[in-house]
Amino acid sequence: MAKDPSRTARNAAMFNDDSGPVSLSVQDERTLGSIHNLAATITACAERSEEPVLAIPARSLGNVSFNEEKRVLQMGNKTTSRELFNLSQAKSFMQTALVASGAKRLIEMGKTTSIRGLYYMLKHDARGTKEPTFHDQGECDPVIEDCEVLLSALREELHLFADKRGDMVGNITIVDSGDEIDCSRMGSGGYAIPSIVEPSVIQFKECKAKFVLHVEKNTVWQRFNEDKFWKKHNCILTHGNGQPPRGVRRLLNRLNTELGLPIYCLLDNDPWGYYIYSVIKQGSINLAYESERMATPAAKFIGVRSRDFERCGLSEGVKISLNDVDRKRAKQIAEYPWFVHKKDWRREIDLMLKNGFKLEVEALVSRSISYMTEEYVPRLLREGEFLD
Amino acid sequence: MAKDPSRTARNAAMFNDDSGPVSLSVQDERTLGSIHNLAATITACAERSEEPVLAIPARSLGNVSFNEEKRVLQMGNKTTSRELFNLSQAKSFMQTALVASGAKRLIEMGKTTSIRGLYYMLKHDARGTKEPTFHDQGECDPVIEDCEVLLSALREELHLFADKRGDMVGNITIVDSGDEIDCSRMGSGGYAIPSIVEPSVIQFKECKAKFVLHVEKNTVWQRFNEDKFWKKHNCILTHGNGQPPRGVRRLLNRLNTELGLPIYCLLDNDPWGYYIYSVIKQGSINLAYESERMATPAAKFIGVRSRDFERCGLSEGVKISLNDVDRKRAKQIAEYPWFVHKKDWRREIDLMLKNGFKLEVEALVSRSISYMTEEYVPRLLREGEFLD
Repeated sequence: MAKDPSRTARNAAMFNDDSGPVSLSVQDERTLGSIHNLAATITACAERSEEPVLAIPARSLGNVSFNEEKRVLQMGNKTTSRELFNLSQAKSFMQTALVASGAKRLIEMGKTTSIRGLYYMLKHDARGTKEPTFHDQGECDPVIEDCEVLLSALREELHLFADKRGDMVGNITIVDSGDEIDCSRMGSGGYAIPSIVEPSVIQFKECKAKFVLHVEKNTVWQRFNEDKFWKKHNCILTHGNGQPPRGVRRLLNRLNTELGLPIYCLLDNDPWGYYIYSVIKQGSINLAYESERMATPAAKFIGVRSRDFERCGLSEGVKISLNDVDRKRAKQIAEYPWFVHKKDWRREIDLMLKNGFKLEVEALVSRSISYMTEEYVPRLLREGEFLD
Repeated sequence: MAKDPSRTARNAAMFNDDSGPVSLSVQDERTLGSIHNLAATITACAERSEEPVLAIPARSLGNVSFNEEKRVLQMGNKTTSRELFNLSQAKSFMQTALVASGAKRLIEMGKTTSIRGLYYMLKHDARGTKEPTFHDQGECDPVIEDCEVLLSALREELHLFADKRGDMVGNITIVDSGDEIDCSRMGSGGYAIPSIVEPSVIQFKECKAKFVLHVEKNTVWQRFNEDKFWKKHNCILTHGNGQPPRGVRRLLNRLNTELGLPIYCLLDNDPWGYYIYSVIKQGSINLAYESERMATPAAKFIGVRSRDFERCGLSEGVKISLNDVDRKRAKQIAEYPWFVHKKDWRREIDLMLKNGFKLEVEALVSRSISYMTEEYVPRLLREGEFLD
């Protein structure tokens, strides 16, 4: 790739707080380049005595569409302008530049922080005033998202990390920050999936596994790990403690796109389980601009299915009645563009509504403690009958 | 230790679902022994045509006291009787026996499950009726706690696991379920602390670390791990994602009591931070019967302190005003028997109330991104001025 050698040299000489020079990754240089360009645009306007204006891609629902071909949510081309010489926009203009400069400092220092940390880093009273740069976190978060789209950089590439939760075990060896980690030797606890799993941090060293089983809850993951499911079925086992955080979603995306591993999801048979699947597969509406790298359109939903109460001979006691919110959410989800044309999915959701009850993965325990690991999932994998 | 050889032989021959005989640990045999004794008491009553009665240690606040010598919360000797021939108690008598029998099945199979799993395992309509053994999880949970005190067994010893969250890195090598895990080679993600960390699962193999730094939040943990704080200061770094779950508390207890490591806690300067410290140090009121193994009376609170806003020269913007709930909670905590006689703690809480604001650990970022890892905590450790 083309590089500006002078910039590379300058960056390479930058210093990390007090612990020596930081070597920047190709990705870091690319992100810094975007930030420099943004700054150059603003100063060029000033030098020409013109009003500085930023065109921020619109993150509203009206600018999000489902790309049928790539099968992910995507942002359109609508932008809103953010003007410095506009009383109602001057502050957010300043905040945008401030967040970008914060990201620049982090990248140059070779450090990362949480969005909470960035907020504290940037919060101060504007010079000569009692006006804080940000009143609260809620004022900072959307500006971070603005910067992501403006700079075409994932939050992780701005050196910002999110909460981490979610663990991994299985037949894969990775390198994380230089440490080689054999996920088949991680005991009962597992490898804690970090928030930033970009190739600059995590490399795949060796993978014997043939697929990934992603389960919703850590308690279910513990059952599968204890029964060494991943060993018997030569796979990788992950969970995201409910709706998987960014790190887990990005890792599933990388395991699928880079290693070609199928991703099978074992989630509750309820609207929340459907929603989690939708986020893993198509991305979230709110963050549509990052779907291409965060979502995994090839993911499959293997269960729990609405038919399973009868099919698996579960006992009456495991039924949990649907409430009004469940019914409303289920109908909304059935109308999502990526569900609406899929007969199997509509049938699935209709059957849950007709049943009048939902089923948790743990309901399978009513058959026997290891029914889910020794019979249920192996049969589904054998039969290959998944929802797409 | 003395063992009943006939029972050992019988247990050793028990089978794990379909995957061969399970060898029971000494602890498992002890727990099974307690369950057998419980059952024997009930059948003995029946054989003598007497009414079966269980004496359940009372888990009410009135039966909890602070043991000044051991410095943990402890249960007293009060019990309540649970009678089979009593209309209002017959059901909970049956539920108690059912949970104990569920634990027996789990131990004999060599398997563990979540409390959700146990609930599903035991839920069915009582024979010949439409009456479920448990209506919901809320009916099952207190019975599990009853069984813990009745059998003098931690939940983990009944083969029940809780949610897991919390990670560890640092200069320690452990063995988890036979896998050797070098926590100084765990990259940015870390070793995910399991829910069950009893010696039968986790053994300490080699420990060079001189202390444990326990931080409240995973985002702060990420900052400390990225700066390799544990390497520079030869320690172990843990977090529990807020109030630490049972596995993390038990692990801190074991690191302190078995390896003699001091435990230093870095928590927010707010009532919630104080409460987390109290749970780590003295145990929780609700689960006082397990404090001796779950709490770490030697733990120290190193920060964030009420004086730190001035002392560290933080910027105005990091202050978060106390609300009425904060003020009320702070006063309650100051009256806890283990805080009330400590002048330092009372001064600490009073100063927060006088300040009128609270401080998060992340507020230290307003000084600089690595101020907490490179200046703040090192200085506190050097000066050794902790709250006890």
